Amino acid sequence: MELSTSEQAAITSGGDFWSTEAIESAGIPAVTVTDGPHGVRMQASGGDLLAGVPATCFPPAVAGASTWDPELLHRMGRALGDECRAQDVAVLLGPGVNLKRSPLGGRNFEYFSEDPILTGVLATAWVRGLQSRGVGASLKHFAVNNQETDRMRISADVDERTLREMYLRAFQKVVTRAQPWTVMCAYNKINGVYASEHHWLLTEVLRGEWGFEGLVVSDWGAVVDRVRAVAAGLDLTMPGPDAAGDRALADAVEAGRLDARTLRLSAERVRKMIEKAGERPAGSYDAEAHHALAREIAARAIVLLKNDGDLLPLGENRTLAVLGEFARTPRYQGGGSSQITPTRLDDALTEITASTGAEVAFAAGYTTQGDPDERLLDEAVAVAAGKDVAIVFVGSVHETEGADRESIDLPAAQLALIERVAAVNPRTIVVLSNGAVLATKPWDENVPALLEGWLLGQAGGSAIADVLFGRVNPSGRLAETIPVKLADHPSYLDFPGEHGHVRYGEGLHVGYRGFDARGQEVAYPFGFGLSYTTFGYGAVQATATAAGVEVGVPVTNTGGRDGREVVQAYVSLPGSRVRRAPRELKAFASVPVTAGDTVEARLVIERADLAYWDTRLGRWIVEGGEYLIEVGSSSRDVRASVTVRVACDPARVPLTRESSVGEWLADPRGAEVLGAAFAAAAGASDGPTAAMTANPEVLMMLGSLPLSRMASFPGSPLNAGDLDKMVEAAN
Amino acid sequence: MELSTSEQAAITSGGDFWSTEAIESAGIPAVTVTDGPHGVRMQASGGDLLAGVPATCFPPAVAGASTWDPELLHRMGRALGDECRAQDVAVLLGPGVNLKRSPLGGRNFEYFSEDPILTGVLATAWVRGLQSRGVGASLKHFAVNNQETDRMRISADVDERTLREMYLRAFQKVVTRAQPWTVMCAYNKINGVYASEHHWLLTEVLRGEWGFEGLVVSDWGAVVDRVRAVAAGLDLTMPGPDAAGDRALADAVEAGRLDARTLRLSAERVRKMIEKAGERPAGSYDAEAHHALAREIAARAIVLLKNDGDLLPLGENRTLAVLGEFARTPRYQGGGSSQITPTRLDDALTEITASTGAEVAFAAGYTTQGDPDERLLDEAVAVAAGKDVAIVFVGSVHETEGADRESIDLPAAQLALIERVAAVNPRTIVVLSNGAVLATKPWDENVPALLEGWLLGQAGGSAIADVLFGRVNPSGRLAETIPVKLADHPSYLDFPGEHGHVRYGEGLHVGYRGFDARGQEVAYPFGFGLSYTTFGYGAVQATATAAGVEVGVPVTNTGGRDGREVVQAYVSLPGSRVRRAPRELKAFASVPVTAGDTVEARLVIERADLAYWDTRLGRWIVEGGEYLIEVGSSSRDVRASVTVRVACDPARVPLTRESSVGEWLADPRGAEVLGAAFAAAAGASDGPTAAMTANPEVLMMLGSLPLSRMASFPGSPLNAGDLDKMVEAAN
Repeated sequence: MELSTSEQAAITSGGDFWSTEAIESAGIPAVTVTDGPHGVRMQASGGDLLAGVPATCFPPAVAGASTWDPELLHRMGRALGDECRAQDVAVLLGPGVNLKRSPLGGRNFEYFSEDPILTGVLATAWVRGLQSRGVGASLKHFAVNNQETDRMRISADVDERTLREMYLRAFQKVVTRAQPWTVMCAYNKINGVYASEHHWLLTEVLRGEWGFEGLVVSDWGAVVDRVRAVAAGLDLTMPGPDAAGDRALADAVEAGRLDARTLRLSAERVRKMIEKAGERPAGSYDAEAHHALAREIAARAIVLLKNDGDLLPLGENRTLAVLGEFARTPRYQGGGSSQITPTRLDDALTEITASTGAEVAFAAGYTTQGDPDERLLDEAVAVAAGKDVAIVFVGSVHETEGADRESIDLPAAQLALIERVAAVNPRTIVVLSNGAVLATKPWDENVPALLEGWLLGQAGGSAIADVLFGRVNPSGRLAETIPVKLADHPSYLDFPGEHGHVRYGEGLHVGYRGFDARGQEVAYPFGFGLSYTTFGYGAVQATATAAGVEVGVPVTNTGGRDGREVVQAYVSLPGSRVRRAPRELKAFASVPVTAGDTVEARLVIERADLAYWDTRLGRWIVEGGEYLIEVGSSSRDVRASVTVRVACDPARVPLTRESSVGEWLADPRGAEVLGAAFAAAAGASDGPTAAMTANPEVLMMLGSLPLSRMASFPGSPLNAGDLDKMVEAAN
Repeated sequence: MELSTSEQAAITSGGDFWSTEAIESAGIPAVTVTDGPHGVRMQASGGDLLAGVPATCFPPAVAGASTWDPELLHRMGRALGDECRAQDVAVLLGPGVNLKRSPLGGRNFEYFSEDPILTGVLATAWVRGLQSRGVGASLKHFAVNNQETDRMRISADVDERTLREMYLRAFQKVVTRAQPWTVMCAYNKINGVYASEHHWLLTEVLRGEWGFEGLVVSDWGAVVDRVRAVAAGLDLTMPGPDAAGDRALADAVEAGRLDARTLRLSAERVRKMIEKAGERPAGSYDAEAHHALAREIAARAIVLLKNDGDLLPLGENRTLAVLGEFARTPRYQGGGSSQITPTRLDDALTEITASTGAEVAFAAGYTTQGDPDERLLDEAVAVAAGKDVAIVFVGSVHETEGADRESIDLPAAQLALIERVAAVNPRTIVVLSNGAVLATKPWDENVPALLEGWLLGQAGGSAIADVLFGRVNPSGRLAETIPVKLADHPSYLDFPGEHGHVRYGEGLHVGYRGFDARGQEVAYPFGFGLSYTTFGYGAVQATATAAGVEVGVPVTNTGGRDGREVVQAYVSLPGSRVRRAPRELKAFASVPVTAGDTVEARLVIERADLAYWDTRLGRWIVEGGEYLIEVGSSSRDVRASVTVRVACDPARVPLTRESSVGEWLADPRGAEVLGAAFAAAAGASDGPTAAMTANPEVLMMLGSLPLSRMASFPGSPLNAGDLDKMVEAAN
């Protein structure tokens, strides 16, 4: 049954905070959409928007990304789909694939990485997993929503090449490979235009270029003007109801200010989504099995940053000191809309105690408020002294949606704890709990072992024990660079902007791309992570195909334990005609290798991922040439490399009146045409033209002269009136 | 007599390459305009555009700026004015006040500094000096012409605050203080619009805001479309004749596409300039006196970067080795339109030989082509070995208008010369000749003394000898930072751009501002330079006045030689509400102090120079607060500091529907109005509003919510229909 205009308007806004609008006359039910992405957050009561009914709190994206394993993310997506079915949720609001532009980003824990390929591959797996259960994903926040400061209004001012290659690339990958049911438009503006009103973004790029078939839902409160939003390509405004907006839409159609087909199409997309949601069966899930999965992912997410003298894994000890409030009161997720009420919660202190026959002594060392407390510090130092090993738990005090951080430093009280414990116990291990990078310099030089524990979800405590005691051999890798200091970061000069604008001044040079371009020292590079075993690389082979480049490299476990190596392929094109970062991640694989074994790691670089965005032609171009494929264990630990010849995409920039003399001469046909014009004018060799060309420095300057400008010079060999004919002849 | 439309069109383009168009019927003669800025370059013949008749080649701007002395620049301007009179030149094309955004800028030698205040103060003095002789200046290249690559088309993409505070600030200072007869519009585009067609730039800002009374002339060939250019505010198109353009202009007026008053006004400005030029008497100049002035400025421009063990000035020696072709064949100016045929040319080898009783041995060491030549190297090393002192002359091989550099490194042959000479002679002095910074790391660690000799003009050779032998005590200071490596530079990631656009990604953080913001190590900081004596600073005093801040500091010559100290005042505002560089030069003074004496240095910071550009209000704002005044000998050698309270400019950002809840609450009147609205809605405390505010994290997120968006939330305490009334009540 066709909906009336007012019904179309009604169904394109929510029925309440978490449901679509039911249109009973047309038999369209309401369906529930709710917050994710690392758990299903169903609001428990009307009293508090953020308190949810219990659900598995899986590791947030910061941790999931550190596994570098799409298979794990796929399983997590499936599990979330089952929890959605159990709660009658049609669409789970995730994944969040915004790049981590700055370590200060308050919502970084909800995002994957500073690299778009890593983000895109992992998020694709997550979406496929979720949607395989008949539950929809909502790919968010589209787009360039990389900060919380002034997030409802800030304009992310970013050039198109950076936008395409960095900030949209993960979205493009997920849309084209996994067709999420919905894409969520962001709060912010992009180059001055609200994402919710950005026709180029929501319609031309998302649907036109990428072929998106789902609906665009607003972030909650992102719509400023319903009519402008629908005209731009936004389908569903949340939350609702929005009677005033519904009327404004209907009026606009009535008055011809909005094309009736546009509103009808949006309403159809909402209806189709509701119908699709109706197909999923109800379900239930095994909370224990999901907890186990959360623990498996969490353990795989932990990054071993330092392990001098193989202090880890812990062997036989008589006494262990566990220090830091976070061992007892875990930091396991961030604040804001993604906050889950967990089904259970493991803490590291309990899990460590259960894992060892040693005597375990605990001291809090600091309060979670972060204020210095000398008594707590003294107590912790007393506990640490003389123990076989001291394990210090520290981390960020508060990370939340809605606010960016102001520093990447640990609180002073925690820094003091590390320093004083390390001074009395040389066998000190530090475990970090944090949603975005923390500075580790210079204090990490005084501790022999360091684990990056991120925010690991409800099973983080047991996962940390798994790694400490070697039940899991760590294979997590940094999905974001840890800088020596915040001021080194590529984004530092332009974050979070001011007066409504943030300039993406570093352009393409996000994260490791910027550190590498400037040859800067970092604390721990992108892609880095140690193992309890060691890996050797053989010779790498690369073969260009129509689809991209296939890379193979033998990886040998040269140590005494089974483990996983995350093999990473970085690509560059020496002599490229466009600016590029020194190396860019293009493929990776998490490869299990048993001790002593050799496994052939196979990586596939998609041809599309080799392309740069050409702003002159307005499209992706794969430049032809000898690409350098560097394979290794991190962005700064290349183990083997090879070059491979890749064929170019056909691309010719047409010559115009404004093309320079140099550009005309560089083009075979252009050189012919221009040469003929010069020859014809050769008679006039004693005029100003001769003066223009008598000096080699003048000649050099001529190369950059646009043809039209050369023609306007007195005595020019070119006639302005002939230029159009010349352009026609050249193209 | 009123000019006809076609006469108006004719007079707004040149009569030939270097003259305006005469309108004989109206008795308007042609006048000559010609290239500067560090000499009068009258074209010698029709055969070569760049070969000039002999004139004094004063030190290029790179050297003039290193004196940090406006009095010297004023004298140089006067002398140039006298040479213009002697050559019947009406307008000299200079000064060039573009900032040195990148050390690679091919035309950096024609520009002053990476700092807009230093540039503006020095250029103002130069213009006043020149125009005091009845000759016009041409302030160029207006604006943001900071590179040669694709200079005819490149769009400098720069945000408005950066544009105002960095790239336009020197222009603004010179226009408002010295009223140059002409301003020359640049070749490039600014944010996508050609400078020659930029109405905002040429009319709204230049004339409207700054009160420019002169005419705007095009750079030679900068006009793409005469009609658009005149409409934007460009008056005189050069070179000419341009009969086609003249016709197009007259046609446009005829057809009503161009306001007749606009063309008439442009023609009037050209006519007025020609009349003004007619008032200057003919003249002559004393070439020897001008050479002496050129030598004085050059000696004052030399920067002593390193002088371990007081190797300089040279005392009694028996033997001196002078090495390097540049000692015999001086590098003294750059290539392109500013290239002067000097009246005479001093070389360092001759001048050194004449300055000493020691035996002087010379070896070329390298060819000016820069190719490695082992024979020349061996010969130089043999000459250097065993001599009392070795002086090595090295420098850039080629710097010219029309091309940016690709590296800041010395040629390999010259690096080898330094290394091998220093290895055989521990008393090695290096003298640099270069138009833009060269990397000195790590080789300068192996030589005890280093002189930065820039491009010093025709008297550079004698000036270098003056400093080497202590006849002049060096007081030159770096007007641009010497980085450790090019990749450290703030501009590095975005220079020179590609595909027609260069993003000014570092924003405000040009030069030392960027190095300081990131806490980066540099080779030699902005403002740095040693002396043969030493200076001590007393306590600094600062007094705020209506006009700015008056700073006084006693400076004592604590060494044994008379000398000059360049006292620099850097300003910051701790806790500023806007992003600022850690310190910004705001005033400076070159102060002569005889040995043992104390002089009170008096610096005046203009209030206007304390202002930042507020993009919300569209005007300059002096923020109130406790400004920190750091006084010292370089940007990284602060000797004394003081804070001074500065009153704020009245500035209130009006509240709007899009102002955030936090902004409303921060405004006294806004808080009242919003509070009343909340109170009125307090009854509805069990609806979704209560849900929105029950959780502290939700509340925190509300602060950033625009009022309009809050009003659109279901159950909001605000009614969208009341917002306009609230806005009215609040403002």
